[in-house]
Amino acid sequence: MHPEPLTRLIDELQRLPGIGRKGAQRIAFHILRTPRDEAERLLAAVQDVKDRVTYCSVCNHVTDVDPCAFCTKPDRDRRVICVVEDAQNVIAIERTRGYKGLYHVLMGALSPLHGIGPDDLTIKGLLDRVKGGGVDEIILATNPNVEGEATAIYLAKLLKPLVVRVTRIAMGIPVGSDLEYTDEVTMHKALGGRREV
Amino acid sequence: MHPEPLTRLIDELQRLPGIGRKGAQRIAFHILRTPRDEAERLLAAVQDVKDRVTYCSVCNHVTDVDPCAFCTKPDRDRRVICVVEDAQNVIAIERTRGYKGLYHVLMGALSPLHGIGPDDLTIKGLLDRVKGGGVDEIILATNPNVEGEATAIYLAKLLKPLVVRVTRIAMGIPVGSDLEYTDEVTMHKALGGRREV
Repeated sequence: MHPEPLTRLIDELQRLPGIGRKGAQRIAFHILRTPRDEAERLLAAVQDVKDRVTYCSVCNHVTDVDPCAFCTKPDRDRRVICVVEDAQNVIAIERTRGYKGLYHVLMGALSPLHGIGPDDLTIKGLLDRVKGGGVDEIILATNPNVEGEATAIYLAKLLKPLVVRVTRIAMGIPVGSDLEYTDEVTMHKALGGRREV
Repeated sequence: MHPEPLTRLIDELQRLPGIGRKGAQRIAFHILRTPRDEAERLLAAVQDVKDRVTYCSVCNHVTDVDPCAFCTKPDRDRRVICVVEDAQNVIAIERTRGYKGLYHVLMGALSPLHGIGPDDLTIKGLLDRVKGGGVDEIILATNPNVEGEATAIYLAKLLKPLVVRVTRIAMGIPVGSDLEYTDEVTMHKALGGRREV
């Protein structure tokens, strides 16, 4: 019923997270109506992300320079590494402005159900960083759900022999939710109330 | 906090209808993770819509051939024209499979508040089609809200001297809602129960 190109765009848009048939249709018609230069800007932005954004070879955070800004900034405390599941979690923690250490992005969490084991995460890279020395504390900031907890416990076992302090962010965050959606204050409390594992 | 290209993509995505900051962030990271060929397909689809989809010179429906399929299909009843506000409404009516006539897309509705007058719609084109002859009935299928009603009444005045029958779809549709979201059955009832204006 739609012209073929419009149908194809609607199909492609539906692959995006949180976009259903109605939403895709609405966006497709918006793109159709939108001035060409605005559409070009969107296209360029997508292209740019695919071309220029990559993962930091040290901490695996998303970046357009390698190593990333966190790993190179002189004002960050290099003795503390905060371990998170993904890049969005780094952003959530940075929003608190309460943390000045480094990060390590695991690129996921252990999940036997989804066939995600230790080798699918960047755990080896984390251990290498720690073995490199100069690290006093590892903060385990994986999500407060089953997978995140399991991952934290697994990492604690591996890290305790190597680091002075291995800590876990406090459960100030409503369990079952996601770090990405935690407000600054709760996140700040969680960071502050971290306890020895 | 994000790498610049990612920030720009998130900004661009937020301009799309129904997408907020969180949704844009989630989609941006999805695009970042997605395989390049899938991203390329999305880019091509957007490009294609901008390049190949246009408006029918007869009925103003979206199309990639001019005149559009509805205006050229021999199995459509050329004596009836259904007038709608936008292309999505055409799709909503086609979904009923109960209508076999032609369409005319107004590209909006009269709205003094938003400064949209008769000259901003494709009313002149509609009158020219009717004056061209061969039209027995005009079905006014503008939205059942203030603007849509006003537009229908305005068009009825202009068309009555020119056409045998000027009808308005029945108010089977919940008033205040939008044709785009009407289910097939309600839409079918509305088309069937149309009454003389």
